[in-house]
Amino acid sequence: MTLGRALEHVRHQMPRYRRWLEDFLRIPSISTDPTYASEVRRAAEWLARRLRNDLQARVMLWETEKHPVLFGEIPGPSGAPTVLLYGHYDVQPPGEAEAWQSMPFEPVVMGDRIYARGAADMKAQIIALLAAVDAAREAGLPLNVKFLLEGEEEIGSPSLPRVLQDHAEALRADICLNPDAGMQGPDLPTITYGLRGLALFELEVYGPKEELHSGLYGGAMPNPIQAAMRVLGCMHDDQGRVTVPGFYDAVRPLTPEEREMLSRLPFPDEEEVRRRYGVPGYWGEAGYTPLERTLARPTLEFHGILGGYVGTGSKTIVPSSVTVKFSCRLVPDQDPDEVHRQIRAYLEAHMPPYVRWELRYGVGAPPVLLPWDTPAVQTLRQALQETWGVEPLLARSGGTIPAVAFLQQYADVTSLLTGFALPDSRAHGPNENQHLPTWEKGIQAVVRFLYGFRG
Amino acid sequence: MTLGRALEHVRHQMPRYRRWLEDFLRIPSISTDPTYASEVRRAAEWLARRLRNDLQARVMLWETEKHPVLFGEIPGPSGAPTVLLYGHYDVQPPGEAEAWQSMPFEPVVMGDRIYARGAADMKAQIIALLAAVDAAREAGLPLNVKFLLEGEEEIGSPSLPRVLQDHAEALRADICLNPDAGMQGPDLPTITYGLRGLALFELEVYGPKEELHSGLYGGAMPNPIQAAMRVLGCMHDDQGRVTVPGFYDAVRPLTPEEREMLSRLPFPDEEEVRRRYGVPGYWGEAGYTPLERTLARPTLEFHGILGGYVGTGSKTIVPSSVTVKFSCRLVPDQDPDEVHRQIRAYLEAHMPPYVRWELRYGVGAPPVLLPWDTPAVQTLRQALQETWGVEPLLARSGGTIPAVAFLQQYADVTSLLTGFALPDSRAHGPNENQHLPTWEKGIQAVVRFLYGFRG
Repeated sequence: MTLGRALEHVRHQMPRYRRWLEDFLRIPSISTDPTYASEVRRAAEWLARRLRNDLQARVMLWETEKHPVLFGEIPGPSGAPTVLLYGHYDVQPPGEAEAWQSMPFEPVVMGDRIYARGAADMKAQIIALLAAVDAAREAGLPLNVKFLLEGEEEIGSPSLPRVLQDHAEALRADICLNPDAGMQGPDLPTITYGLRGLALFELEVYGPKEELHSGLYGGAMPNPIQAAMRVLGCMHDDQGRVTVPGFYDAVRPLTPEEREMLSRLPFPDEEEVRRRYGVPGYWGEAGYTPLERTLARPTLEFHGILGGYVGTGSKTIVPSSVTVKFSCRLVPDQDPDEVHRQIRAYLEAHMPPYVRWELRYGVGAPPVLLPWDTPAVQTLRQALQETWGVEPLLARSGGTIPAVAFLQQYADVTSLLTGFALPDSRAHGPNENQHLPTWEKGIQAVVRFLYGFRG
Repeated sequence: MTLGRALEHVRHQMPRYRRWLEDFLRIPSISTDPTYASEVRRAAEWLARRLRNDLQARVMLWETEKHPVLFGEIPGPSGAPTVLLYGHYDVQPPGEAEAWQSMPFEPVVMGDRIYARGAADMKAQIIALLAAVDAAREAGLPLNVKFLLEGEEEIGSPSLPRVLQDHAEALRADICLNPDAGMQGPDLPTITYGLRGLALFELEVYGPKEELHSGLYGGAMPNPIQAAMRVLGCMHDDQGRVTVPGFYDAVRPLTPEEREMLSRLPFPDEEEVRRRYGVPGYWGEAGYTPLERTLARPTLEFHGILGGYVGTGSKTIVPSSVTVKFSCRLVPDQDPDEVHRQIRAYLEAHMPPYVRWELRYGVGAPPVLLPWDTPAVQTLRQALQETWGVEPLLARSGGTIPAVAFLQQYADVTSLLTGFALPDSRAHGPNENQHLPTWEKGIQAVVRFLYGFRG
């Protein structure tokens, strides 16, 4: 049996796939820092060699303003359906070196996990796709396979809309399999049917052109930190709701059926959150569980703030400016550009006349709700079920993968979201890791999906 | 005539006093930065040599936990009154090097000003005291002179209360002359009868122990920036008043007489403030002019804020903490410790239960209102009037000089505040400078005061 031979091949070839993973993890393909641009490209070229030399794919690098998009194509039987395999080969910066137990770009196996930046998000997932196709090729590829591997996911996929529009024909596919959404636990294979969108903002508020002595001017000179805190501090009410007019207008309400489904997902309780994160408890929008707030409700989140004198000791000045970074996570049917207009209107209505200010709007990604009852979902459910021996969970994610909405919008390709990164894989944090037994199961599950998919 | 001979001596010795000033300005006696501690000491020792070798004073260095206090004593005729001359030999850090037209610790004369960090605040003022005593000694010292020269004014004079208590006997004097308060213009000699006090605060608000992915936790995890902005942003109302309960209770109201007196002081109008500082206009407590707000009303001022991700681009995290530096300028009869209790009570009442926080209280200085109708003030008025040919202004200052309240409280010595730094001398800023013709007049005025003071 062909599927059986492919799975057998996976078993035999695991050492080779591990070497691929380790080599890939050694490339610091940090897309958020322009000084690593050549390393990001090196990751794309390394993948291009795997696709061309190991998978015999036809390969193209599509250049963009930032990092290249790698496209690959392996024809299957004539008339067979086509699956598009998505991945991003860029990673987050490692952050504080002291917080890591090993070098972020020197993969190390401890226990049954491999530790490195990008291990979970999502280099192991990309290698799982390559390994599954490699094994299926050996046993007889049952369908047409295409690869779409981008290098800008961690910066919001700004080049992707243009690339998808330019190459919609090449990207034509019956489905996109995207393993960037993780799973809920080692024995909880997961299909994710919803993603939050994202709108990024940076607000700068200006006081006096230069810092002034607060003894001489304090009390009469506008203070930009005071003005920013006054306005931004009122963007949530006592119930944790965002006060920006219109913010919730387009939000699709949670149905009782969906709330019931989401309530089955694991999530740390208040006591666990106190212990693990040192906070007194959860916070957020009244009327929703903490899990619902993170998966199915929009947010306004402050990420960073810097202004005035922040050195040691004191300097009694009226500061000249303050910068605040924040974002909104969005849910269907909110539109990032519309939310941008609402935020701007709020600031125009509330910022006091005694300061100047500027709002910068970063790239937005729309929220996504995917169907969960199609034949393609059914095939993926079955592949996961056969691999883990349990019925997979249906989940939403509070995170954002811009490619999903963009692929739908610009190339008319629907995505299936899953993944083999565990909740404690510490994506974006120190000591990021991939659980290796789960990874191997993930390869098997992708193989099963390739053989099961009928278009 | 003795006064005449002393003034004559000043004229002849000006080149020597200029050399003193330039040598003194070359010492980077930055008290706010511990790495400069030896330079601060070097400034004290340089002054000790001037007092001992040039003024034949009996000199002592009183050690403290930080920087030494220099005490000097020159006996005059038996039975004569005693004047204590106060100065601080420490300076602010220079700040951004690019903003300076010259090297901050390499004094340069341009036009009729000398440029260097500390020129105005207050090394030229200290040298004016030394020069006046030098000249008076040559002509016949009419009274007992003591010097109190400290090195911690720019960090709030934390060691001074202890020193004053330990050496109250040595410091006994009929009056203290303190030339650290500046003047309102080159032709507006000024006696300052009021200073604002100061209470320094640093608030740290904590969220999750480590930064968390806002896609996974955003909306449910407490955000310390949100909590801090929400509470601190409400510490002023729409009328610019501080909302902390009890904050204004001890504030002595401005009398109509005093408001009339203050209204004569020069202060930039709205158009000038727009042009010079690039702000749309003034801000502050309703019911008071901008000048009154800076001189005679208490404030709560935010100096700096830092939390979360502040690098380039974006990082969508729930931040783990934020730190806010702020202070209150105080007016009679507010007490810094009482204001600290009020601020703490406000935070306890308003900080949300979902975050932990910590309030640090820095050293406080009480506000000061000095009598303006004593014989000593009359002597100083006359000395300034004879030197500039105009009636001096009576002013309050919005700044803080802790020594004034401390000398009163711990050594029972009342201060007279004046000074020869102009409003555009840029104390604490880049290109700090001392107007040299005004400085020479200042030396003459101090000489006149020494000869006029009858105790």
